[in-house]
Amino acid sequence: MSRLQNLKTRLAEINAINMANALMDWDHQCFMPHGAAEARAQHQGILSRLAHEMFTSDETQRLVQDSVSECANEDDSAMLRVVKREIDQATKIPAELVEKKMRLSALGHETWVRARQTNDFNLFAPVLEDMFGIAREEAGHLGYTDHVYDALTDLYEEGATKAGWDSMFSMIKLPLVELVRRIKESGEQPDDSIFYGQWEDTAQAGFTEMLAKDVGFDFDRGRQDTAAHPFCTNFSVNDVRLTTRFKPYLASAIFGTLHEAGHGMYEQGSPGEWDMSPLAGGVSLGIHESQSRTWENIVGRSRAFWQRYLPKLKAAFPSFPDVPLDQFYKAINKVEPSLIRVEADEVTYNLHIMVRYEVECALLTGAIAVKDLPDFWNSKYEEYLGITPPNDAEGCLQDVHWSAGSIGYFPTYSMGNILSYQLWEKLCKDLGDVDALMSAGNFTPILEWLQSKVYRHGKKYPPAELMTRVTGRALDARPYVDGITKKYEALYSLTAGV
Amino acid sequence: MSRLQNLKTRLAEINAINMANALMDWDHQCFMPHGAAEARAQHQGILSRLAHEMFTSDETQRLVQDSVSECANEDDSAMLRVVKREIDQATKIPAELVEKKMRLSALGHETWVRARQTNDFNLFAPVLEDMFGIAREEAGHLGYTDHVYDALTDLYEEGATKAGWDSMFSMIKLPLVELVRRIKESGEQPDDSIFYGQWEDTAQAGFTEMLAKDVGFDFDRGRQDTAAHPFCTNFSVNDVRLTTRFKPYLASAIFGTLHEAGHGMYEQGSPGEWDMSPLAGGVSLGIHESQSRTWENIVGRSRAFWQRYLPKLKAAFPSFPDVPLDQFYKAINKVEPSLIRVEADEVTYNLHIMVRYEVECALLTGAIAVKDLPDFWNSKYEEYLGITPPNDAEGCLQDVHWSAGSIGYFPTYSMGNILSYQLWEKLCKDLGDVDALMSAGNFTPILEWLQSKVYRHGKKYPPAELMTRVTGRALDARPYVDGITKKYEALYSLTAGV
Repeated sequence: MSRLQNLKTRLAEINAINMANALMDWDHQCFMPHGAAEARAQHQGILSRLAHEMFTSDETQRLVQDSVSECANEDDSAMLRVVKREIDQATKIPAELVEKKMRLSALGHETWVRARQTNDFNLFAPVLEDMFGIAREEAGHLGYTDHVYDALTDLYEEGATKAGWDSMFSMIKLPLVELVRRIKESGEQPDDSIFYGQWEDTAQAGFTEMLAKDVGFDFDRGRQDTAAHPFCTNFSVNDVRLTTRFKPYLASAIFGTLHEAGHGMYEQGSPGEWDMSPLAGGVSLGIHESQSRTWENIVGRSRAFWQRYLPKLKAAFPSFPDVPLDQFYKAINKVEPSLIRVEADEVTYNLHIMVRYEVECALLTGAIAVKDLPDFWNSKYEEYLGITPPNDAEGCLQDVHWSAGSIGYFPTYSMGNILSYQLWEKLCKDLGDVDALMSAGNFTPILEWLQSKVYRHGKKYPPAELMTRVTGRALDARPYVDGITKKYEALYSLTAGV
Repeated sequence: MSRLQNLKTRLAEINAINMANALMDWDHQCFMPHGAAEARAQHQGILSRLAHEMFTSDETQRLVQDSVSECANEDDSAMLRVVKREIDQATKIPAELVEKKMRLSALGHETWVRARQTNDFNLFAPVLEDMFGIAREEAGHLGYTDHVYDALTDLYEEGATKAGWDSMFSMIKLPLVELVRRIKESGEQPDDSIFYGQWEDTAQAGFTEMLAKDVGFDFDRGRQDTAAHPFCTNFSVNDVRLTTRFKPYLASAIFGTLHEAGHGMYEQGSPGEWDMSPLAGGVSLGIHESQSRTWENIVGRSRAFWQRYLPKLKAAFPSFPDVPLDQFYKAINKVEPSLIRVEADEVTYNLHIMVRYEVECALLTGAIAVKDLPDFWNSKYEEYLGITPPNDAEGCLQDVHWSAGSIGYFPTYSMGNILSYQLWEKLCKDLGDVDALMSAGNFTPILEWLQSKVYRHGKKYPPAELMTRVTGRALDARPYVDGITKKYEALYSLTAGV
């Protein structure tokens, strides 16, 4: 067997352990009984350590070195590039720290769920303290030139830095603040109370699964369950798991499912022959989020989409008010500063991200202490969104990320919003009347375009290169700012260009 | 760190891989999308091989050797005894064969499900052919003195042999055949049509979960889902998963759940400090089955139990006929030769086992070919039960075991039936009026007795030693033959002792 083949076999073994760990995580969030938390944390800690040890072993590193000369095609070269970068990151972090983090993460999740349920920040504070301590340790091991944050955020988005994020946010901050101001001053506000009601779980499950299936999520290679905080995971390109949640606010499940289905279709779109290899799956969190936002917001919050699906929604939920399409379209695009990020509208969403970005930078550098987080959080909400959370459950306890030690992750959400419009602009140029496709329920050309331009490349090209290949530019906020401004000027009857 | 401690750490690592594999299996049977079968098979194959390699490595074997002198208590000595036996079995089977079997087992399960759904034996035949081929290879590696079957059945029941099983079956065969004959001649037959109806899945789930909870299954450390072929598995003593199935025949879910809850409570009853160690969990399939049968048959098919639960059943299923207790009691104990093992009554059940035992011995030795299995199966059903399956789905395709390569397993079911009565006889001597406890819904003394006598010992004592410690005898069929004869003489108004 060639050394390249040996490397692939070894990577498949590591993949099996990582996918087992991912299944444990999915089960943890969807089904696992509470009493199992301790054992699950131990098991996940061990599996993380074993995978880490195998991945960073001398043997694997030697196989990578020795395989270079055997690379006969650009896929293999790309695979080696990805593996080298990941090994480089992984070897810098000691195995004990990886295991410690995984263990804290599993127990931290349980604690976070309870803290949120009981609105008890003090219960969660020690986890947060430990998690940011681990993050500082990680950053120290990874190394950085300008800012401690750079070391961590690069793990989620290749090449990202605090300076880059600051620049990105500066491009959208003023236009967003301005747009929110103009919308507020318009005095117009659609009624979204139509979404509140006693919606049966089975009806919500049926309707959202139909939507996911129609846009192209393959249920023969995936499924949907419920979780407290919806997510998408996968154990193979042929085994992608969506989650959603069923609330008295019907829009939550609908847009939650479309969002996760966007992630899911990206994963399902990797070439089958790359399964279990490092090239399979989404290339970065930013690109990933661009896909979830494409299907949630650009498709799912379009008038054309609901031209087709509003009658079906009314059929699935007989007690849903018989509102006309335009009223419904306005309701799903209501812009209003609110407390919960995952249910925020497209315009204010990035303000939620800016709060989290500033909070995690401040916690990481020690500019604020964990005990001061609730006050800091609340003051930022007041500053950016003009509202103050009435409690921590609806405030700084609302997100799962920090309980898992995902620090440096939040800005990729905003990046995703921006990239989704950047890709969509090009898609529309290539496909023509996309609204006509959507209102006819013909999502195949859209999915196929994304499939051929983005999904099928998996992790082959670094994110900036992928974006440049598809759109000619790396990150460009103009399509997002233009698109969102135009959409909401029309929705709120604002005078264009003011 | 002591060598014993090093060994324990290593065993915990292997446990983590094995438990991940068990979770993959549970997910496979309960939730996994069909398209994922290939990747899951690969992942499970790899994890099995890794665990096998770690368990049988020189390093582990050296740690076992070196730990002997450090054993300071009988728990550690017992742990070493168990590990030595398992390493001995595992080192005899090459890693490649273990992986091949695990892979075939995962794909084989998919094939079996489809073959059963479409009543297509030919679809399943190649899997069976391969699986019995693997079994013969395994037996060759394990070695045996008298019969090829001995090598395999010892894996499930320490010390079991074909000669032993032949002897056990000879003790119960005549009394059972005689009892079935007398019941048939009585001309009396209760009406069990009361169980057929359109029972809502949610009502079946709610009622069966209530039963499992009441008898003592801890839902904070376990859960129940549905599967085509109900089973119980666990990933920790604090994470035990039951499965059941919801059919138009209500008794299926009720007794299925009580059966699996019996397995589940045994697993939940291991000492917490043994979790992730080889001492945790049920000691053998025969002892395990004695617990499932205790709760399914001895408790669950008693008049006293339904004195309490019949009113609750009627409340949970408003369309259930308002039958009196005695009629219900007779209906759940109707003895009638039937086609499906898992729904067979207590008296004919072991005849189903005898068919499978003879079939697998014949397939293993080559006395019959795979292609002849349906005919052989059907002729045995005619011979023992006086009925012929109308198709293979209700015939030789009904059981999951062979698709997983579990050959030598079936006789442990009959052993379980026998041991359940043997243990119950002693329990009644110790606890007094057990019927009064059950009719009052007071299962705690029963569970605590089993807990203190059986469950808390995990795998510490070999099965025969455990039975001897509790009842003074290893395996004794008399309590079973006496108990079952007395129960059904009363139910069918037979003249005692004829």
